[in-house]
Amino acid sequence: MAPPLKIGIAGLGTVGAGVMRMLARRNDEIAARCGRAVEVVAVSARDRSRSRDCDLSSVRWAESPVALARDPGIDVFVELIGGSDGAAREAVAAALEAGKPVVTANKALLAHHGVALATLAEQNGAGIHFEAAVAGGIPIVKTLREALLGNRMARVSGILNGTCNYILTKMREEGLSFETCLAEAQQLGYAEADPSFDVDGFDTAHKLALLATLAFGVQPDPGAIHVEGIRSITLADLDAADELGYRVKLLGVAARAGDEVELRVHPTMVPKHWPIAQVSGVTNAVAVDGDAVALTLVGPGAGGDATASAVVGDLCDLAAARVSRPFGWPVARLRPAGKPAIQRHEGGYYIRLAAVDRPGTAAAIARHMAERNISLESIMQHRRGRPHGGDRADSAGGPAPVVLITYATTEEAVRRAIDAIEADGVITSPPQVIRIEKD
Amino acid sequence: MAPPLKIGIAGLGTVGAGVMRMLARRNDEIAARCGRAVEVVAVSARDRSRSRDCDLSSVRWAESPVALARDPGIDVFVELIGGSDGAAREAVAAALEAGKPVVTANKALLAHHGVALATLAEQNGAGIHFEAAVAGGIPIVKTLREALLGNRMARVSGILNGTCNYILTKMREEGLSFETCLAEAQQLGYAEADPSFDVDGFDTAHKLALLATLAFGVQPDPGAIHVEGIRSITLADLDAADELGYRVKLLGVAARAGDEVELRVHPTMVPKHWPIAQVSGVTNAVAVDGDAVALTLVGPGAGGDATASAVVGDLCDLAAARVSRPFGWPVARLRPAGKPAIQRHEGGYYIRLAAVDRPGTAAAIARHMAERNISLESIMQHRRGRPHGGDRADSAGGPAPVVLITYATTEEAVRRAIDAIEADGVITSPPQVIRIEKD
Repeated sequence: MAPPLKIGIAGLGTVGAGVMRMLARRNDEIAARCGRAVEVVAVSARDRSRSRDCDLSSVRWAESPVALARDPGIDVFVELIGGSDGAAREAVAAALEAGKPVVTANKALLAHHGVALATLAEQNGAGIHFEAAVAGGIPIVKTLREALLGNRMARVSGILNGTCNYILTKMREEGLSFETCLAEAQQLGYAEADPSFDVDGFDTAHKLALLATLAFGVQPDPGAIHVEGIRSITLADLDAADELGYRVKLLGVAARAGDEVELRVHPTMVPKHWPIAQVSGVTNAVAVDGDAVALTLVGPGAGGDATASAVVGDLCDLAAARVSRPFGWPVARLRPAGKPAIQRHEGGYYIRLAAVDRPGTAAAIARHMAERNISLESIMQHRRGRPHGGDRADSAGGPAPVVLITYATTEEAVRRAIDAIEADGVITSPPQVIRIEKD
Repeated sequence: MAPPLKIGIAGLGTVGAGVMRMLARRNDEIAARCGRAVEVVAVSARDRSRSRDCDLSSVRWAESPVALARDPGIDVFVELIGGSDGAAREAVAAALEAGKPVVTANKALLAHHGVALATLAEQNGAGIHFEAAVAGGIPIVKTLREALLGNRMARVSGILNGTCNYILTKMREEGLSFETCLAEAQQLGYAEADPSFDVDGFDTAHKLALLATLAFGVQPDPGAIHVEGIRSITLADLDAADELGYRVKLLGVAARAGDEVELRVHPTMVPKHWPIAQVSGVTNAVAVDGDAVALTLVGPGAGGDATASAVVGDLCDLAAARVSRPFGWPVARLRPAGKPAIQRHEGGYYIRLAAVDRPGTAAAIARHMAERNISLESIMQHRRGRPHGGDRADSAGGPAPVVLITYATTEEAVRRAIDAIEADGVITSPPQVIRIEKD
């Protein structure tokens, strides 16, 4: 058997310690299956004295992540520091410059500096392995980079942020407001004290940038993504969606649109019967629509064990000498992703308007839609509305909501129609617009 | 760029022609992503004159599959003939003996002769790639063989036969009998004229044998699997399952049970909220429960495009020199799978008894259960039963059905309790027993 693959791990938090433990308990089988063992020979972490739930008795401590990355005694550098710049970026660059493959869970780093790092990787004949960076334990990177190469991709969409999916699930199932559910997610440790990175969609955008690169060959670029979060979603929307046969999910969507790739993160109405619609709580899911195969992968998107599983999977590929290009393409073939042009988005729309409760309002609204050539699949008016904020138990009625579902149209037409409706003075609060994703 | 990978395809049915077309339209991208193109240089098929929807103008015709397998002009042999013996087996063996990797969609061949062929593969340094043999377009082979090596597996279970899932879905959704739905499946081409291979569970068993090898390192052996099909499932069962919060699916299950691996194919009650419970129609799904990650993969289990996608994925791995051991383990490490010992199965049970409608019957049944230490989660008695066969619209009442749900117990205890109940003479037709799968 070949000598062990020697690895150095920078960052010994939950994931790093999980990788240490997983390798310790699985190494006999990994060695048998991959042809060589995987051995952690050196580590680095800010605090050496912290007690960690793994055996560090036989590893060297490096002075710094960069020193570890350059350590001639390691074959592979595992970066679990996090952050798009600073130590993580420097150390990954140093490892690649030294010709060492990198395994990382760092979505922000690759979303922002993926092209530069992949170039460095190619120049030095080293790989970048990042299964853990997207959707945690779901092997979507391997699936897009290797298994589905026979497919021309039409769309990749995913529930990529467990915090948002937890909040939306909780709101719907228990009739609670966004604020109440966010507070609960924070208590349970599913959301940060500053929840913006999750609930405003930026975390999803980082992961989407990487999925888009794998699926469509566009350069990873968070700036190319139209991003909306879930703060505006109310119980009224979730209830109306339910009535209309949809679920509301925060999706990251990369879809072919003519010669371009449309990249967007926003609350989305998905048909209830889609596998992805049925994914609840913190679970993640990715739906892949190729011209030959449509797949949905459901699994844990975060957590020490799930992320460690993805890191160890990458290490097994390296031990078995299974390699791919960093993003599955020669870096010179990656096209710029372009800037978001959400105005040109075509699709169905859900529009909820808090309209004044007087005769003819719905008809006037419908007329403005018709004038922009927007066909309505349905128009629903409830005499007494759900409160826009607040929990479902708060029974105070609001203005009469009018809910419209359009057939496929453009974002621009929808926005113009809404402007015209607002100019009429018949609506009493900002309209809610949710894009619909269909087959 | 390296010279093209030269392949020979034996068998030009729907899948073979689909592979030809997919390679033709995707080859530029495949070459860029894998570092070399994949070129079909030779084929074999029984009937050369048949018109096929693919370009065969630049391929050589081999005299026979074996001749193709031995052709020194090909690097990889693709076997799409089918059948566990005969031409497929001879040609695959010939290719491996010549040191050529094999790509195959042939589950029967590998389920029956996997150990011998994997031994041959190891001896000759060639691989066997069979993503297409299990669950069609779902990349479950790659996932188990490569991505999840950090996990000790607890259970792998799947909806692996689209025909059965179509029939069970149709029965439940439209209230039709097994016979009616089978006839419809036959009309739509989802079921063969002789449906036994599908509806009696043998097709699922072949696929399960391969999943069990990948996940647990047991030798593929259909004889080690307890197999029951779906012919006995009635609308009464599907309705009772619905009421109790379950769906009935034909599952193949490989589960760790102490030091052994339990292998079984049978109709199974799965909790409605499981992703796998929500998979309808001909779609397949595989749920993987590892100690670090629980995943569900949903996608097309059959069809020319989906199967071609899996074959082309394997070819891309070969083009990129990404190799694995045939079953993910050295063949010497594979353990015999043992014989089925369904009597020792432990789990919950659904039991439906057509009992005579007189006072005390339910109590007598419950007593027999208690005497075998079987705890009941619920006991449900409807005054007037659903007909056992027939469509839901047939409203003739049957005897009063008693439906029991047990807590975890053993198969043996359940069978003994039922024998005792039958000896009482209170039930009027053979009891229905469906195993329950839980977290």
